[in-house]
Amino acid sequence: MDKPFQSYDDQSDAATCAPRLAALRGELKQRGLNGFIVPRSDEHQGEYVPGRAERLAWLTAFTGSAGSAVVLADKAAVFVDGRYTLQVRAQTDTKLFEPRDLVTEGPAAWIETNAAKGMKLGYDPWLHTAAAVEVLKKSAAKAGAELVACPSNPIDAVWSDQPPAPVAKAVAHGMALAGEGAEAKRTRVAEETKKKGADAVVLTMPDSICWLLNIRGADVPHTPFALSFAILGADGSTDLFMDERKSSPELLQHLGNSVRLRPPEEFSAALDGFKGKTVAADPGTGASAIFDRLNSAGAKILRLADPCQLAKACKNSVELEGARKAHIRDGAALSRFLCWFAREAPGGQLTEISASETLEGFRKASGSLSDLSFDSISAAAGHAASPHYRVTRSSNFPIKRDEIYLIDSGGQYPDGTTDVTRTIIVGKPTPEMKDRFTRVLKGHIALATVKFPEGTTGAALDAFARRPLWEAGLDYDHGTGHGVGSYLSVHEGPQNISKRQIAQPLMPGMIVSNEPGYYKAGEYGIRIENLIVVRELPATTDRKMMEFETITLAPIDLALVEVSLLTEDERGWLNAYHARVREKLERLVDDETRAWLVQATKSV
Amino acid sequence: MDKPFQSYDDQSDAATCAPRLAALRGELKQRGLNGFIVPRSDEHQGEYVPGRAERLAWLTAFTGSAGSAVVLADKAAVFVDGRYTLQVRAQTDTKLFEPRDLVTEGPAAWIETNAAKGMKLGYDPWLHTAAAVEVLKKSAAKAGAELVACPSNPIDAVWSDQPPAPVAKAVAHGMALAGEGAEAKRTRVAEETKKKGADAVVLTMPDSICWLLNIRGADVPHTPFALSFAILGADGSTDLFMDERKSSPELLQHLGNSVRLRPPEEFSAALDGFKGKTVAADPGTGASAIFDRLNSAGAKILRLADPCQLAKACKNSVELEGARKAHIRDGAALSRFLCWFAREAPGGQLTEISASETLEGFRKASGSLSDLSFDSISAAAGHAASPHYRVTRSSNFPIKRDEIYLIDSGGQYPDGTTDVTRTIIVGKPTPEMKDRFTRVLKGHIALATVKFPEGTTGAALDAFARRPLWEAGLDYDHGTGHGVGSYLSVHEGPQNISKRQIAQPLMPGMIVSNEPGYYKAGEYGIRIENLIVVRELPATTDRKMMEFETITLAPIDLALVEVSLLTEDERGWLNAYHARVREKLERLVDDETRAWLVQATKSV
Repeated sequence: MDKPFQSYDDQSDAATCAPRLAALRGELKQRGLNGFIVPRSDEHQGEYVPGRAERLAWLTAFTGSAGSAVVLADKAAVFVDGRYTLQVRAQTDTKLFEPRDLVTEGPAAWIETNAAKGMKLGYDPWLHTAAAVEVLKKSAAKAGAELVACPSNPIDAVWSDQPPAPVAKAVAHGMALAGEGAEAKRTRVAEETKKKGADAVVLTMPDSICWLLNIRGADVPHTPFALSFAILGADGSTDLFMDERKSSPELLQHLGNSVRLRPPEEFSAALDGFKGKTVAADPGTGASAIFDRLNSAGAKILRLADPCQLAKACKNSVELEGARKAHIRDGAALSRFLCWFAREAPGGQLTEISASETLEGFRKASGSLSDLSFDSISAAAGHAASPHYRVTRSSNFPIKRDEIYLIDSGGQYPDGTTDVTRTIIVGKPTPEMKDRFTRVLKGHIALATVKFPEGTTGAALDAFARRPLWEAGLDYDHGTGHGVGSYLSVHEGPQNISKRQIAQPLMPGMIVSNEPGYYKAGEYGIRIENLIVVRELPATTDRKMMEFETITLAPIDLALVEVSLLTEDERGWLNAYHARVREKLERLVDDETRAWLVQATKSV
Repeated sequence: MDKPFQSYDDQSDAATCAPRLAALRGELKQRGLNGFIVPRSDEHQGEYVPGRAERLAWLTAFTGSAGSAVVLADKAAVFVDGRYTLQVRAQTDTKLFEPRDLVTEGPAAWIETNAAKGMKLGYDPWLHTAAAVEVLKKSAAKAGAELVACPSNPIDAVWSDQPPAPVAKAVAHGMALAGEGAEAKRTRVAEETKKKGADAVVLTMPDSICWLLNIRGADVPHTPFALSFAILGADGSTDLFMDERKSSPELLQHLGNSVRLRPPEEFSAALDGFKGKTVAADPGTGASAIFDRLNSAGAKILRLADPCQLAKACKNSVELEGARKAHIRDGAALSRFLCWFAREAPGGQLTEISASETLEGFRKASGSLSDLSFDSISAAAGHAASPHYRVTRSSNFPIKRDEIYLIDSGGQYPDGTTDVTRTIIVGKPTPEMKDRFTRVLKGHIALATVKFPEGTTGAALDAFARRPLWEAGLDYDHGTGHGVGSYLSVHEGPQNISKRQIAQPLMPGMIVSNEPGYYKAGEYGIRIENLIVVRELPATTDRKMMEFETITLAPIDLALVEVSLLTEDERGWLNAYHARVREKLERLVDDETRAWLVQATKSV
């Protein structure tokens, strides 16, 4: 059997904090530095990083997907957001690293308060965006300290078993999956860049480059990135800075003559070539080191949002058809799991890990799974109250009767990326559980059914998903929806649906999640997540209107629905959705699952 | 009889454009300038300006409440937003002033395209905010032109019958109305300013100063401003720069010893006194001239939002009680009008002006009206499709059978400012009218009844008011709600409810309007507007929740309601609202109105 995509081993040990922190402090002293900033990021500033870049986890034992640390000679702090408040305390040595809030304080404010006059604080200019370094520099200056760019990362000097940079093979993502040729993409992005007055654009985000060149790789867990940098010229030709070990004759043929494969070591020097020219780069995502280099080379920098991000977010019809197919396949595997769970869970022998492993197996059995799209959140009872819970061997709960079980999971299929959450009751729910579940469902339906005019942002729609909870004095502390890639990142921008005011309107072809929830600390958690696609409605007035198409297909647990709380329209939506689930999946599942599916999708 | 508060005379004449533009160009030539920018603003940058500051209307004959013009030697443009696209073409001489879009283009972009290298473009630094001048300077520089601050306004030099600066008496706004003493207000704003590191704060917005010192005046139409500037020191003492003719012994006694009344001429020189000190000023609302002066004096400027704006927006319990009383009084006058209208309109003798005059008379008869809060929008049939229509003798429509009539109006009472819109059918509505009206009503109810957590912005709630229209492919192109002052501006910030992403959350005590609408060009317009107050709900969970209290009281025309489109809850809201209207008003109106009110508020 293949190696499983998800590991449940405990990933860190607080006992490693002391020796590693001491080693780092020794290294800093040797370099004449009084401190160092350790973000959780790689050279591409994304959420998905290779093991080599897990410097924050190595140092602090905190393994969350976002965070930062600042180390001074006599104190250190680790910064996490609200999702990870409990986790960081469980993982790190809090005597060495004081947990602080990433959002309300963050490293910059902490430095302003804690750094002393004359201190030299190191940072790795490849691991921070240009915009982030500007903020940090101001804060350090207020404390009379100085921020110093390190030519090499001091953690790498003391991390003896640091993994090497990944060199997984990159492969072509062909026309049948991508729907638009790389040459056409390069031409249109190049033309857009040219119109804005740039001679070239520096691309640093892996999903941008993979989308632009129609390539995929396997350099980071669960996300088919081929890590690289690229420079796209105004004529559409491209320099791709990627380790040649990732290449192959097939890949070179796919890339064609207008894409020059060059060693990553040449990337910085290539920036020097823009003396006197205008280069577009994204200060919100591009490494500070790139801006430093362009500046010292005498290039004129045009600070622009990465032009591939919006283009990539608006999927073409081939990508959308792929997504629909992937979701049917994924829905069949999930239904098989839900049927198995319905049979097995009441016996009391299941655990969070055994359930998660079984679902991974059913997804694999579909034959076309290349990876999970993220580590499954398999959470029983109180664990489900942590929206980002990740089960390990030491946390593994048994799944008990009359408790709630939540499974948030997804697959990477070459034709599409899935992300779905179902919440199930084993046995009998309490009236409160049914009330809360039904409110979450009402919010889910309110968003799924909204029609809205062109130009509407996700922020304008977010409250529809919350109102049924608000009416009971409740809410959830996460966004309602994130963008989802096409066999790329399961979290992508620039759109989202949340309280955060983001100016990007929702546009046809964008895939977003619809995932309201409710969390009762220590007791249970509820989330219902489907992916939805923005599509234009046929015109009936002079306004261009949009709506969502729900593409996720899996039964919603009717045992948790208090039907009397639904309006006629909501009941109609639920029944129509379940009828569609049954119709799309029944021919793809085994007899037992089919029989279960008929019950699970019956009209209410 | 007193002079009416609203005049219906045509306010401008396109024939004046040519000689006035020629005179201005002559003056500019004499001063060595190649152009001049004419915003619609006074030294306080607000929406409400005295006649003396109506320079844009004088020059272009365009009388809207927002706009700008740029005059060059051989061409000129006038900039208006979407509300005024039709009006500007009707009023100005378009051969002399090309109408352009204020929002998508604006003076800055126009200058960038139309100014030539070496040009000197004048501007009056008292009539633009610091932030606006920064934008204009950049644009001029891109065209190779230079922006030159004029020591005196060239229009004033050629406008022979320009009104003088107003000197209406300022009066105390006593504790019984204000609910918080001026000393307490000065102390808390001063402390807040001090905490932010400023030695003083420069206040330029009339509503801020009137609120802070508990004074009111009559310097501008429909809004009880006493125009002035003020400097609030960190110790709470205040220099008030206001013409002494506006003062009186009573006012001086009210202001007390910690407020020094000084001549407006001393304001600029007073700024020089901040050499080496830190002064807070709002670049978004403070005149550019103030920032120039502080800079040349060697003061350190702390660019902060005007600290009075948020404090003023959150009304205290005395102000809210006053608002409720004013709305009962106003609702009784409006009901008397609606009853009169129901009796008279079918006879076919009413006009937009006669209806508006009658309503003004009924409001005056309440005995405590100090002014209208704005010129009433009295609009029949197609005129109602312009949300900001203002009737004049030449536009005055008769009010006909089977047509819609819309009246958006309000009063300034010493205890509160009102703003209410009702839409009425004379005779029989079409099914489309009823459908549209009912959708607008459903949106109005959705917003009126929403419960939301602390920290929620108006932008997050705006879509609730639009969704019933969106479902039919419809929308309205204005905000859903604006802040309303306490016997101050009928439009105030910092909060609002609209598609615009404004970070200010809705906070307890804020008064906002709830005014969705629907407009069918050339045929009819619909708007239902009540004022609503943000209030905290009693806690039932660990989340602090808010809701709205509707304070406007007047029947909503049931003849336009398609009851079958309402949900049970919506019908319940309408009936409960009407019962409250009847209960609060029936004892305050004459017998005929009372009988009508019983019919107009009957359960559906």
